[in-house]
Amino acid sequence: MDSTAARSSSALEQERTRLAERYAQIRHESQRLCEPLETEDYVIQTMPDVSPPKWHLAHTSWFFETFLLDRFAPAHTSFDPAFDHLFNSYYLTHGRPFPRPQRGLLSRPTVREVLRYRAAVDEQMLQLVDDLPQQRWLGFAELVELGLNHEQQHQELLLTDIKHILGSNPLRPVYRPRPKSPAGSVPALGWVEQGESLHEIGHQGTGFAFDNEGPRHRVFVEAYLLASRLTTNAEYLEFMQDGGYGAPALWLSDGWATVQSAGWQAPLYWERRGDQWWQYSLAGLRPVEPAEPVTHVSFYEADAFARWAGRRLPTEVEWEVAAGGISVEGNLRDRGHLHPVALAPDSIAPAQLFGDVWEWTASPYSPYPGYRPPSGTIGEYNGKFMSSQMVLRGGSCVTPRDHVRATYRNFFYPKDRWQFSGIRLAGNR
Amino acid sequence: MDSTAARSSSALEQERTRLAERYAQIRHESQRLCEPLETEDYVIQTMPDVSPPKWHLAHTSWFFETFLLDRFAPAHTSFDPAFDHLFNSYYLTHGRPFPRPQRGLLSRPTVREVLRYRAAVDEQMLQLVDDLPQQRWLGFAELVELGLNHEQQHQELLLTDIKHILGSNPLRPVYRPRPKSPAGSVPALGWVEQGESLHEIGHQGTGFAFDNEGPRHRVFVEAYLLASRLTTNAEYLEFMQDGGYGAPALWLSDGWATVQSAGWQAPLYWERRGDQWWQYSLAGLRPVEPAEPVTHVSFYEADAFARWAGRRLPTEVEWEVAAGGISVEGNLRDRGHLHPVALAPDSIAPAQLFGDVWEWTASPYSPYPGYRPPSGTIGEYNGKFMSSQMVLRGGSCVTPRDHVRATYRNFFYPKDRWQFSGIRLAGNR
Amino acid sequence: MDSTAARSSSALEQERTRLAERYAQIRHESQRLCEPLETEDYVIQTMPDVSPPKWHLAHTSWFFETFLLDRFAPAHTSFDPAFDHLFNSYYLTHGRPFPRPQRGLLSRPTVREVLRYRAAVDEQMLQLVDDLPQQRWLGFAELVELGLNHEQQHQELLLTDIKHILGSNPLRPVYRPRPKSPAGSVPALGWVEQGESLHEIGHQGTGFAFDNEGPRHRVFVEAYLLASRLTTNAEYLEFMQDGGYGAPALWLSDGWATVQSAGWQAPLYWERRGDQWWQYSLAGLRPVEPAEPVTHVSFYEADAFARWAGRRLPTEVEWEVAAGGISVEGNLRDRGHLHPVALAPDSIAPAQLFGDVWEWTASPYSPYPGYRPPSGTIGEYNGKFMSSQMVLRGGSCVTPRDHVRATYRNFFYPKDRWQFSGIRLAGNR
Amino acid sequence: MDSTAARSSSALEQERTRLAERYAQIRHESQRLCEPLETEDYVIQTMPDVSPPKWHLAHTSWFFETFLLDRFAPAHTSFDPAFDHLFNSYYLTHGRPFPRPQRGLLSRPTVREVLRYRAAVDEQMLQLVDDLPQQRWLGFAELVELGLNHEQQHQELLLTDIKHILGSNPLRPVYRPRPKSPAGSVPALGWVEQGESLHEIGHQGTGFAFDNEGPRHRVFVEAYLLASRLTTNAEYLEFMQDGGYGAPALWLSDGWATVQSAGWQAPLYWERRGDQWWQYSLAGLRPVEPAEPVTHVSFYEADAFARWAGRRLPTEVEWEVAAGGISVEGNLRDRGHLHPVALAPDSIAPAQLFGDVWEWTASPYSPYPGYRPPSGTIGEYNGKFMSSQMVLRGGSCVTPRDHVRATYRNFFYPKDRWQFSGIRLAGNR
Repeated sequence: MDSTAARSSSALEQERTRLAERYAQIRHESQRLCEPLETEDYVIQTMPDVSPPKWHLAHTSWFFETFLLDRFAPAHTSFDPAFDHLFNSYYLTHGRPFPRPQRGLLSRPTVREVLRYRAAVDEQMLQLVDDLPQQRWLGFAELVELGLNHEQQHQELLLTDIKHILGSNPLRPVYRPRPKSPAGSVPALGWVEQGESLHEIGHQGTGFAFDNEGPRHRVFVEAYLLASRLTTNAEYLEFMQDGGYGAPALWLSDGWATVQSAGWQAPLYWERRGDQWWQYSLAGLRPVEPAEPVTHVSFYEADAFARWAGRRLPTEVEWEVAAGGISVEGNLRDRGHLHPVALAPDSIAPAQLFGDVWEWTASPYSPYPGYRPPSGTIGEYNGKFMSSQMVLRGGSCVTPRDHVRATYRNFFYPKDRWQFSGIRLAGNR
Repeated sequence: MDSTAARSSSALEQERTRLAERYAQIRHESQRLCEPLETEDYVIQTMPDVSPPKWHLAHTSWFFETFLLDRFAPAHTSFDPAFDHLFNSYYLTHGRPFPRPQRGLLSRPTVREVLRYRAAVDEQMLQLVDDLPQQRWLGFAELVELGLNHEQQHQELLLTDIKHILGSNPLRPVYRPRPKSPAGSVPALGWVEQGESLHEIGHQGTGFAFDNEGPRHRVFVEAYLLASRLTTNAEYLEFMQDGGYGAPALWLSDGWATVQSAGWQAPLYWERRGDQWWQYSLAGLRPVEPAEPVTHVSFYEADAFARWAGRRLPTEVEWEVAAGGISVEGNLRDRGHLHPVALAPDSIAPAQLFGDVWEWTASPYSPYPGYRPPSGTIGEYNGKFMSSQMVLRGGSCVTPRDHVRATYRNFFYPKDRWQFSGIRLAGNR
Repeated sequence: MDSTAARSSSALEQERTRLAERYAQIRHESQRLCEPLETEDYVIQTMPDVSPPKWHLAHTSWFFETFLLDRFAPAHTSFDPAFDHLFNSYYLTHGRPFPRPQRGLLSRPTVREVLRYRAAVDEQMLQLVDDLPQQRWLGFAELVELGLNHEQQHQELLLTDIKHILGSNPLRPVYRPRPKSPAGSVPALGWVEQGESLHEIGHQGTGFAFDNEGPRHRVFVEAYLLASRLTTNAEYLEFMQDGGYGAPALWLSDGWATVQSAGWQAPLYWERRGDQWWQYSLAGLRPVEPAEPVTHVSFYEADAFARWAGRRLPTEVEWEVAAGGISVEGNLRDRGHLHPVALAPDSIAPAQLFGDVWEWTASPYSPYPGYRPPSGTIGEYNGKFMSSQMVLRGGSCVTPRDHVRATYRNFFYPKDRWQFSGIRLAGNR
Repeated sequence: MDSTAARSSSALEQERTRLAERYAQIRHESQRLCEPLETEDYVIQTMPDVSPPKWHLAHTSWFFETFLLDRFAPAHTSFDPAFDHLFNSYYLTHGRPFPRPQRGLLSRPTVREVLRYRAAVDEQMLQLVDDLPQQRWLGFAELVELGLNHEQQHQELLLTDIKHILGSNPLRPVYRPRPKSPAGSVPALGWVEQGESLHEIGHQGTGFAFDNEGPRHRVFVEAYLLASRLTTNAEYLEFMQDGGYGAPALWLSDGWATVQSAGWQAPLYWERRGDQWWQYSLAGLRPVEPAEPVTHVSFYEADAFARWAGRRLPTEVEWEVAAGGISVEGNLRDRGHLHPVALAPDSIAPAQLFGDVWEWTASPYSPYPGYRPPSGTIGEYNGKFMSSQMVLRGGSCVTPRDHVRATYRNFFYPKDRWQFSGIRLAGNR
């Protein structure tokens, strides 16, 4: 072996070690998030959007089994052939996914069996990280990275779905007590100005990004104003007290129809007790804290609030331009609040771009110019959802810190409220 | 104390002992039925008719807490005040029942908490059986007896609901392996003749009966023929092979609409694999056994089958007249089959009147002449369901043996199939 | 020709004449009922139970074309082959009926074309009445009689459906102004007593009757009381003012669910304006008249009212026994009120048995002992609806006088309210 | 009067004359389009998206009554106060619109009454055009112009809704026979190239445009290819024959769900008879003509076709840039085909930009930068629909020729198919 090959081999060994550690850490984290759960909490599905926690644990393993083990270790032992149907989420070119709204009708496999499934997949995956011939490494490592980012997305969903499962229960059980968080007054709302310009947006570079974040491309942006911080509960309460939920002129037509049919009067998880609004959080029920960013609002509510405020929501381009040079700091999952927190009085604008709440933008979720999904089944990951959804930016208090970035495009339907979604205003100069 | 009082007191003591034993035995049985379950199986609800096993365990306890402890031991300790809402089934004059279709959305209270709830209720109930002053005994004992019969009804529902929960799962898990059961040929179908006559039907005597079994009253019955045994799978397969599910002329109008909208092609729990029909049972999936009574058919299917056979279903009066002198023997729950079994070749007609399957009758569920429900909340037990349902008679392979009798009136909607319901033919002379 | 044959031939000629006259009269009546309509009123369907008037006009003609012309004059000219699909109501053994809920989506054929269709059928039918060879006469005449009774049923439906079509329109248009009708006080409610006895009920004799009115058979009836007259609006208003629509203990379980989901607060066609209840009638909107019989109530409401009143509804047997010797007199269609009227103060009990409103009975619609539907497609007429419906007796203010009789069994679902259905109480001695 | 005032006054007189003529002509056209209808056709609503023709005739009159007569001639005579509720489409700040899905349940007012309503509005409008004081003219004339453009939009809807009403009828009636149209071969598909550039799009100038066409603004567009003509039936049939409707990988996720639930196998109005596909047109049923542009496809189908073809749909910006200098010529309503026609072999690319079919773009319907709806009720016209719909461009064979332009933005939900919507491909260089 000459020294170049030796160096390269040693680099690969380091790569193997790094990936094995990262794999083990992220996979473990999914299970750690479930530790406060009772067995019963793992099983149920409180609405079609929610998946049972044990389904998340199994599906993320299915992802590694299907896209990694089946391709790179075809002789691996399948834990249970029936799982390929049960835990396929929506990959129609792979097989027949089990119907989503019925995920909560499966008491089996049990939680223990799912954990054994995870362990079996992990064991074989780590073996593969060790053993895979060098010539196949690159494609493998890329797909593992995708699988780990996929797992992180499901970690966020685990927390939003656990919140819905526990929060729908009249007993309003606590998931995890909450660390101290700041209260009191927040800085007055200011506006960050941006002049008109031709910008480049979208991912570039060698770090991981989802396919939908590219290609990087030019966009002409008119001058605009972006709010210095998120909208607070206090501000949202003003909208409510001003009759916002009863004023059709403030709402998009589809939004008003939803308000009427769903009977919305406040954000999700708010409930009125006497004179006071209370809010269910992962730490249980507590009075609505005026200084905290409002969360669990739909796009329709965000849009109506903005209209009431005489403003609008930013486009995703405006958001990305503003977030461009700013480091990914904020109330993300690692802070442990699992709830948005009040902004520190001395913060620098624009504040709260990352963490706290996903920020609804005015941008429908569409492909960037020149976008092409990857070929094969993995191409069903992002591209096929590019209709009727809206882009959200910035991550939330339940997003892993190393998962989000300025170019990250999250997307949900305009009526969705069970994510930690909130509001940042924008305006025209 | 004179000797009469002593005798009476001693009789009461015996009564207390007897009731305590019976209470403990029946309450224990409900939990014994759940022993084969995994924790996850206790939680889900696979259709609105089905309740999660832990809900059954809790609701039957709520029944004793609400109708016995609250009334006779008002100072008793409530285990959890929230349970009064969560585990009220349908008693609208008592409070606001938790919505039935959402019973499967409650992961809490956990199974362990429900078992603690049961233990707390049982402890206080047994205390009350010991302590209750003599002058209140009679009303108390009567209501306890109702509560125990109510518990037995839920034991049957526990088994039918567990079957639906496990049987809806693509993994088709086994609840409990099955004891050996006879197979082979059954006696040819014969007919028991009955001449026209004025009969008395309905409950009489001092034993327990539900309010809907009385008052005893006279009915004129024309001469009729009653099938000597239940309809078998072999006979039902003939109907299927003759295109029964595709021939509208055989069906009631509402029945045909249900066949079309639900896509019925066979009884519930039947599935075709290659050339063979298989059937899910509590012992797992096995080929349809021709000699066994057909089960899990709706009234619509029973009625269509009878029309195809050139016969009809018996009325409940005809059934009760025929069952009048016959002892309650048959394939009831105590036999442990938990599935209908083939009739022994040497059986005496009419056979299989008790056990195996509930027999759909041609009688809509209506009040008997002079029927009055008990006053108060307990009056919501039977009377308010007297519309749009059909009477079934005879008990099934999952009915407790000491729970059924000739006058017992079970009732379900004509489209219902998840109970162990089957067919006995009748005809005119 | 000998004199017997001549006499018989002359009798047949008289028969032909009588049938031709009766046919022409009844067929003409259907069109006369539509005279007050605008063309637009003929076309729409305000709920699935309602059929557009032009559909009724066409379907009754289809009945004669299909069951008479096709069978007895097979060489007759079909007016339009497409009509066999469009105007088949529910005869599944004849062909594929056009979906009922879509009848209001057909603007073509136009009203004029439907009237031409009627004329063509009538011309050929009358020809057939003239020409049909004697040996086929009997079967023919029997089926024509069925067709004419069928047409009369649709005449009643025409009026109830026209009422729904016009009454659903915010303009509340008038169908036909109303003749003077009595008002003021009605006789106090009395009770007609009947002792226990074995009765015969069901049709006998040679007059026309539907298959479901027989066979005549014996029934044992306990002693009972029957209300001397119908329940009035004044009495029903008391029930409403006493909170009847908000008291679950008064309702059957299915009835209460319907009250909740449909938001019922009063009978159909009642609307509150200020302090006053108004009622839409075929003569337009007018204040609720206290002395008139209540109408447009469902079985659930009739049953709840009876329970509130401490009484019950009569069984169909009790009703028929009471109506046995009474002549068919009352506020039937020929009186022209097209609305129930207040009872004359000097009326003889039991009053109002015929006419005014169909009286809900406590009897589910089931076959009489020994009932068999006719063979062939015509067998789909009555028998296949014998599930989940309730029997009503006595005819209404829109029933042709020569159409109803004491043995006549009408049937609707317990939630139905758009017929002229009302309440007569019964009780136990 | 000095000469300037005289000149100005004379100009105003000319304005009055011009507007009166234009008003009369456009209003008359709506009624002319209904001439082939039977009265019955005016009344029904075959799906919630469709409105009855008489509703269109009334609603467009309501628009003039509400926004012109009520404001500028407040003393005008209301034809019927009830119409303000019945014919308000969706203006929630004006009052309570009659529920859209119930428009087909109104037989009254009759067609004749609606025509009288139109005449009454027209008479008062023309009076106002004559009489209105000069100082209020400008605002008035602008709103009349909006009302006339609104009327033209409803003229297009009249034709698409009439097509649905007649085309849903199994009799497939003809609306109007069709003029000769070209058949045979069309030019091969070519590609028009466009280099990258910063463009301006959106309306400018003094002519009428809807609010949603502005403000004019800059957009950076990457280089792209635009198909030289529309996609033909022949090309679409290839997609179908290649299994396009059964290949989930070709579809957006929401599109595939719609294909499954709606059972789509072909464009709307296509039906298979033996070996041949037929297509219902306003001239009746005829075989699918391969050379004609495909129409009545949803956005989902357009997008799936494009993916199958290895291309994509153009953005609305790309479309507008390409259409920029091209005059509004094509198969628009004035040609009288009322159906797309085959392209002439010698046409110049890009062809068929205007007329034939509305072209689905890849652009969700969103506000342009700086967009603000007009204040007041009229602000509900366009802006409140800016969610979950897609932009279509270019007009169709039922669009009035003087109604469309390059900047015109039509919008429908991605599942909608009852408009004359079709496909033009685009691609990347």
